[in-house]
Amino acid sequence: MENIKKAFERFTTLDEVEWKEIFHIMKPKEFKNGEFFIKEGQTCKYVGFVSSGLFRYYYQTDGQQLTRQFFFENNFMANYQSYITGGSSIAYIEALENSEVILIPREDLFRLFETSMNFQRLGRKVAEFLFMIMSAKYESFLLQSAEERYLSLIKNRPKVIKNIPQYMIASYLGITPEGFSRIRKRIVKG
Amino acid sequence: MENIKKAFERFTTLDEVEWKEIFHIMKPKEFKNGEFFIKEGQTCKYVGFVSSGLFRYYYQTDGQQLTRQFFFENNFMANYQSYITGGSSIAYIEALENSEVILIPREDLFRLFETSMNFQRLGRKVAEFLFMIMSAKYESFLLQSAEERYLSLIKNRPKVIKNIPQYMIASYLGITPEGFSRIRKRIVKG
Repeated sequence: MENIKKAFERFTTLDEVEWKEIFHIMKPKEFKNGEFFIKEGQTCKYVGFVSSGLFRYYYQTDGQQLTRQFFFENNFMANYQSYITGGSSIAYIEALENSEVILIPREDLFRLFETSMNFQRLGRKVAEFLFMIMSAKYESFLLQSAEERYLSLIKNRPKVIKNIPQYMIASYLGITPEGFSRIRKRIVKG
Repeated sequence: MENIKKAFERFTTLDEVEWKEIFHIMKPKEFKNGEFFIKEGQTCKYVGFVSSGLFRYYYQTDGQQLTRQFFFENNFMANYQSYITGGSSIAYIEALENSEVILIPREDLFRLFETSMNFQRLGRKVAEFLFMIMSAKYESFLLQSAEERYLSLIKNRPKVIKNIPQYMIASYLGITPEGFSRIRKRIVKG
């Protein structure tokens, strides 16, 4: 619980009563390798906090899997669009190994947002943070080459390089496994 | 002022005192055609509300302009990353015609967020809304063809089709003017 507290404190502080309230609505759940946190067509009823393990967020289209994100230990995860609107997910979040997750129910969280400034601010800061990540991702696809995206991944998210199979990294970078292999050779030679 | 009130009410309600407070920090400004709301390297110190006119949000790179967004009458506009972080903008927002804008200073808005639940909720709802737009944009580039993006633009944002020069629409769709011209011919024939 110390780790999830630290993760929240990146966004805002909560007082003792608020910590009790938010811990009260959490429930732990185990996901086996290959199990889904959410599937296409489902509603995202929980924010998950990955206590241990690893998840991948991807789209399935024309027999292809397009990777949007990886969630490691001490990361929050959700299909945030579906979480906000209550609409259906068009993507999957799947465990890549046996994982432990703390679930925070959407409805309870929304209720807490309306009980105090600190909770409301938490909701705002999280939304702003996720906007920043999404916007940076869009800009990286618009303004950078696949090679630049790869170099920035090596620099900023070494965990992805170390833990994720290469064909999934290629898909995250928006290139084919062959294109990715060419880039890696170029960089090694470079 | 009725229009800006309506625009805010899409996100949350405010009470009479709160309306007074937020109107109090606003100031009108005129932008001539070709004038900048923000340039690369500057900090986004204001959220703008377009009372009349039209703006374009774009990146300048290798002699090319890559269009991210258009802001019409009754739209809010900002470089939201720069607005959140106080960091420098890597993009431009330029008036495409003579325009009237209501400026809402970032610092004053941040202060108001901390004075009431309604303001804090407003900040959250806006961030969530902008996340949704950004995420949908990313998904459209990842999952749709340029032709599908164009058809969805015709359906969902007819104002863009009607008011924006074709080379800018092409750039917004992420294609060359020639590619855009081919798609338009195909659709007319279809």
